[in-house]
Amino acid sequence: MTRRISKPLRIGKVTIGGNSPIVVQSMTKTDTRDIPTTVNQIKELEECGCEIVRVAVPDKEAAESIAAIKKSVSLPLIADIHFDYRLALVALQSGVDGLRLNPGNIGDKEQIARVVTAAKEREVPIRIGVNAGSLSADFQPDAPLVERMVNIALEQIRLMESLDFGLLKVSLKAFDVPTTIQACQKIADKMPYPLHLGVTEAGLPRTGAVRSAIGIGILLYQGIGDTIRISLSAHPCEEVFVAYEILKSLGLRQRGPTLVSCPSCGRAEVDIIALAEAVSKRLEKINKPVKVAVMGCVVNGPGEAKDADVGIACGKGKGAIFRKGEVVGTASEDDLLEALMAEINSPIGKD
Amino acid sequence: MTRRISKPLRIGKVTIGGNSPIVVQSMTKTDTRDIPTTVNQIKELEECGCEIVRVAVPDKEAAESIAAIKKSVSLPLIADIHFDYRLALVALQSGVDGLRLNPGNIGDKEQIARVVTAAKEREVPIRIGVNAGSLSADFQPDAPLVERMVNIALEQIRLMESLDFGLLKVSLKAFDVPTTIQACQKIADKMPYPLHLGVTEAGLPRTGAVRSAIGIGILLYQGIGDTIRISLSAHPCEEVFVAYEILKSLGLRQRGPTLVSCPSCGRAEVDIIALAEAVSKRLEKINKPVKVAVMGCVVNGPGEAKDADVGIACGKGKGAIFRKGEVVGTASEDDLLEALMAEINSPIGKD
Repeated sequence: MTRRISKPLRIGKVTIGGNSPIVVQSMTKTDTRDIPTTVNQIKELEECGCEIVRVAVPDKEAAESIAAIKKSVSLPLIADIHFDYRLALVALQSGVDGLRLNPGNIGDKEQIARVVTAAKEREVPIRIGVNAGSLSADFQPDAPLVERMVNIALEQIRLMESLDFGLLKVSLKAFDVPTTIQACQKIADKMPYPLHLGVTEAGLPRTGAVRSAIGIGILLYQGIGDTIRISLSAHPCEEVFVAYEILKSLGLRQRGPTLVSCPSCGRAEVDIIALAEAVSKRLEKINKPVKVAVMGCVVNGPGEAKDADVGIACGKGKGAIFRKGEVVGTASEDDLLEALMAEINSPIGKD
Repeated sequence: MTRRISKPLRIGKVTIGGNSPIVVQSMTKTDTRDIPTTVNQIKELEECGCEIVRVAVPDKEAAESIAAIKKSVSLPLIADIHFDYRLALVALQSGVDGLRLNPGNIGDKEQIARVVTAAKEREVPIRIGVNAGSLSADFQPDAPLVERMVNIALEQIRLMESLDFGLLKVSLKAFDVPTTIQACQKIADKMPYPLHLGVTEAGLPRTGAVRSAIGIGILLYQGIGDTIRISLSAHPCEEVFVAYEILKSLGLRQRGPTLVSCPSCGRAEVDIIALAEAVSKRLEKINKPVKVAVMGCVVNGPGEAKDADVGIACGKGKGAIFRKGEVVGTASEDDLLEALMAEINSPIGKD
């Protein structure tokens, strides 16, 4: 995959676009006016690997709260603005690092111009964040949905460029995966700014992670996308977890351990699913990017998982511990977990 | 996406390839020799939407058990054969509907020829199932992995074609997603048979579903793939669930309800995550392909989810019930779940 090289910009300390790594974003789910609770969630997000945090700004008090929140956190903050352009102005006064405007509801050209002027003074980037479900009803009502999404974004881009403002980032999101993909593909060729990817309102993690992985994964594999946000009805750290799993699967980012585990079958003589779950739980406490395998049979386990740094292949009543496909020890069934963890925790790559 | 049209074949009552729908497969995780337990799991798999089931055949007793299992189930059965070609012969005698052979370990040409002859007599298809981790070490050891996977499959295809056998299906699986994608793309152009897609040993559901969705989703979006199996360290019905989520996300199959739910943010005045979870749990009992939305704010909820058949948009202490973007009623916060379910259970599409 050849990456589309976009015009990079900085949101606080983080660079998005160009050759920079794909940036992981999320959004707080707390009341932004409740400063301690919001600060706490932002710190949780930083801990789990989130790189930029967006906060909802439903009213002036929320916009003003950004000033106090910023004093207590180090991650860049983006204000999510809908309906009322004046909230963007207050968020800018509060020192926000980025704005997200929804062109479907943000107001007329004059109002947008006021936001752009204020953002330009502070060199604060703006994301033009189009959602399939909230396009203005009177914008090209007879055009196909993908075309409407692309055109509404292009119209906003032209408006902001006409105001000599180029600190732009663009997103086109839909719940429908093919719509999201097509919209992003089309706009990617028509403008030079970084693309923020997401499948909107993707649902609960069990289904939303799959839906998001497909939509975002297909685009990233085509080299499209500079930052991603997974929209899940869940704690925002679950969004970050899924974001990294997507990026790890495509070899675009690395974070923490990777667990290879066989699905188990009629050959297995140990409860592989329970063992994989126990290993996964123990791996949560490990930060290094180690690849660990839990395999159901001794006969082909070490070979099947020879890419793994460390692994276990289970047989009747015992298992073989292996490193990079070479068996380095055995353990009885009761000791499998501890033996594997001991091997994981010993230095890797001695050879 | 334009689908690659493969040469269709039948596994029992199910057609794979050509213009047929993408078929969902899974594999039992029971001891195949334990006939009642295996039959029970196959029935669970049928119930959750699985269309073809594979069983492990580690020994002769397992191969013989297939005869008794087949008497009690209606789904087509495939025997998963490694190492010993004679197990394939016994599985065929037991009336199995398909074979999976791993070319990396199945034996020499003469042994394969004996299996092919027996399969041809019974018109039983064979899957040439290549796994990145179990290629014969002496097969093109210096070639890149993807090339080795493709070439070992092509060698087996040529061998079987030379025996005048064409009831073939092919898979090339790896844990690594780009490897899986590249191998499948390359072989898709080089032979006419259906492709079975999978990302092997993908791990536990939370990570494995994402990894599988990306690998399989990218290929399906390119029109490649006729049947899929998700390899998860979990109950096989979870594999089937994820398979359908992948297919539903790309509009390739439909099964059961789809839940659109917003991720929640600082605008929400109701616990959207808890409500979405409660709705999801209730939807498990519904089979019709209804699209349901749970949205966090009244202001843009119905619009954002106007594609949903039925939805709820929550405000302070109450919510609006909507159909296809039109508000049709309201409910107090305590009644939101029941009001939404009542609307879901009433006839849809009256207009």
